[in-house]
Amino acid sequence: MKQALTEKEIIRKVESGGVLSPKGYLAGGVHAGLRYNKLDIGVIISEKPASCAAVYTTSHFQAAPLWVTRDSISSEGLIQAVIVNSACANACTGQKGLEDAYKMRALASEAFKVAQHHIAVASTGVIGEFLPMEKIEAGIKALVPGSSEKNAQDFQTAILTTDTVMKSCCYSAEIDGKLVHAGGAAKGSGMIHPNMATMLGFITTDASISTEHLHSALKEVTDVTFNQITVDGDTSTNDMVLVMANGEAGTKELTPDHPDWTIFVDLLKANCEDLAKQIARDGEGATKLIEVTVSGAGSNEDARTIAKQIVGSNLVKTAVFGEDANWGRIIGAVGQADAIVGPGNVDIQLGDILMLKGSTPVEFSEEEAKAYLENETVEIKVNLNGGAGKGMAWGCDLSYDYVKINASYRT
Amino acid sequence: MKQALTEKEIIRKVESGGVLSPKGYLAGGVHAGLRYNKLDIGVIISEKPASCAAVYTTSHFQAAPLWVTRDSISSEGLIQAVIVNSACANACTGQKGLEDAYKMRALASEAFKVAQHHIAVASTGVIGEFLPMEKIEAGIKALVPGSSEKNAQDFQTAILTTDTVMKSCCYSAEIDGKLVHAGGAAKGSGMIHPNMATMLGFITTDASISTEHLHSALKEVTDVTFNQITVDGDTSTNDMVLVMANGEAGTKELTPDHPDWTIFVDLLKANCEDLAKQIARDGEGATKLIEVTVSGAGSNEDARTIAKQIVGSNLVKTAVFGEDANWGRIIGAVGQADAIVGPGNVDIQLGDILMLKGSTPVEFSEEEAKAYLENETVEIKVNLNGGAGKGMAWGCDLSYDYVKINASYRT
Repeated sequence: MKQALTEKEIIRKVESGGVLSPKGYLAGGVHAGLRYNKLDIGVIISEKPASCAAVYTTSHFQAAPLWVTRDSISSEGLIQAVIVNSACANACTGQKGLEDAYKMRALASEAFKVAQHHIAVASTGVIGEFLPMEKIEAGIKALVPGSSEKNAQDFQTAILTTDTVMKSCCYSAEIDGKLVHAGGAAKGSGMIHPNMATMLGFITTDASISTEHLHSALKEVTDVTFNQITVDGDTSTNDMVLVMANGEAGTKELTPDHPDWTIFVDLLKANCEDLAKQIARDGEGATKLIEVTVSGAGSNEDARTIAKQIVGSNLVKTAVFGEDANWGRIIGAVGQADAIVGPGNVDIQLGDILMLKGSTPVEFSEEEAKAYLENETVEIKVNLNGGAGKGMAWGCDLSYDYVKINASYRT
Repeated sequence: MKQALTEKEIIRKVESGGVLSPKGYLAGGVHAGLRYNKLDIGVIISEKPASCAAVYTTSHFQAAPLWVTRDSISSEGLIQAVIVNSACANACTGQKGLEDAYKMRALASEAFKVAQHHIAVASTGVIGEFLPMEKIEAGIKALVPGSSEKNAQDFQTAILTTDTVMKSCCYSAEIDGKLVHAGGAAKGSGMIHPNMATMLGFITTDASISTEHLHSALKEVTDVTFNQITVDGDTSTNDMVLVMANGEAGTKELTPDHPDWTIFVDLLKANCEDLAKQIARDGEGATKLIEVTVSGAGSNEDARTIAKQIVGSNLVKTAVFGEDANWGRIIGAVGQADAIVGPGNVDIQLGDILMLKGSTPVEFSEEEAKAYLENETVEIKVNLNGGAGKGMAWGCDLSYDYVKINASYRT
């Protein structure tokens, strides 16, 4: 409890913050003609090579840009620029796709005077089509990175596909006596749009940290943030979250032994959780954000598994869309989660309204419940009363528009 | 290939067959007032105690009737009557719910002069409500089982909830020189209707077989039939498939050593697959049956896992509803299956239309594909070219009506 309070005191949200809020980064976006009338190529550049860690989709069909990015990072663990295009995912494109992704890296190297192995590449868009390399080349050459708020917004817009809103945030904390920022931008309207799936997250920080420790912090944080959102359970071939740390804040190098290590991890977590929730809220056809908290599980992992099962249930999602306080669907989802669940002592709350206590139905006001479900954020709380494990997950409701968007695509 | 042909020759579908097609069974259904104006309590009775095997939901919250049925079967492995009610699931009802389920068994014992431990109990309907025991009692007393086609239909209708059609079938085969039947009835409109979920399957056969071997045959068969259908991935607290074998066909006792053992297993499989497909086709809001066949996997289990991942994908389901030949969504689903997938050599067909060959897009006629997708049954075929593993799964498309039915329930 003490720790939670302290964390809230220390980690502050930066109003209108984004990828350029941390020191020492430039960004930009251009319209290269891949999308009609919208920015479609973006870049983030660090003033110097930054420690870099990334996590990738678990799909068996990882797209070409992920292979190139992994190749770059494996070289020295340093990235100075990340080049991103929307509209074409460069996935399922075979050897030519891989060559195109390397070519995209080479073009960015030339344009920004950054070593090729210091460049990460990301793509999002249609699967099974080749990158239009002439447009990519012209676009990269036309990019003029800068440090203004508009430059940040241009990047943050260029990476979108079917998203209805730009997704960015920044948090700050005092670490080692210095003000450290972690900013980020993301795209993803679920992993759901047909060939336009993909969640991408780009985090910048001015903390000083080795690639190795940055990777372990990112892994820890994505497990409880980006990996805990779901729109429809579909995973893309191109999902990637990448974090760069350029050390410009002037802290000593952060390691797990550093007294402020947990503050840094919490800072990164605040950033990733914020972006993850923005993605869940913007899920295709979504009208509400659903936040599920599971407590009393045997382990944090079990709690997260159950939370994700609930938020991923089509029955729960349609009930929330219909503003129907149907706890039977929640217990149904808990029941099938691949986790240890003692069936005899489960509590379920919708917001603050108790509906099931010790696995036994509790009388509640349907009117009050319906009124609660009219909120834009709906909280489902499940207590298994069986341990200290806690976990959260985020998603959105399932609406007519979800079906409309996904049934009518391409036709 | 030889075996498949032989099987088709030997296993014959019985027109308009059902639970009373095998010898030595009676059935019936009544309106007890649990549902408005519809039959809601049903019974199947074998003329003598029958070997019995059952498989149950994997939900952590198994409903009371499942505990009572398991108790009965564990006594001697014999069941003579199965009593079923719809409208109320008797799930999440605690100690009182369990007492009610035992009471229901006792009432059936008295009414049909069958030992209590030879009676199985099943319920389907709303979660978290108690059985209306007075109505249950009056209903059971009013049941008059018989052997006519109407008696079978009464049972088959009494077990339905949101199903739009009755589900039954029967197949026959010559085993040990005798004509053996396996008939069945099922309910389930997906596992999807809110508190009215549940898939129930009741199979009758006049084969002679021990409980032990019947159980292993049922397990083998449900793994490739009932367990391979999905409407929305939600599992009920009350799912159960139960098979009774009364030996009335006069065969010698079937064991895995019997020369016709595989014919019996195939007979049971034909029955279960037919019922499973009827359930998938009647999924809430469904307009089409989707049949996925995966071949070339490392194992049959991997092939089934991948097939179920494809047929369970909301993206694939909405694409089929929208008649959109979007193979990118299929590869997306294959990509995230928890199975071994060599990403470089995958073929995808929609019906007979090849769309991906060796993981590389193939040009196809969009018009032809669209025309194919207008069929009521859509076949998706995936070949991983990596082994001899084969598997199938069945589901349905995701339509506006699915959202409508599940969002507006109770409101």
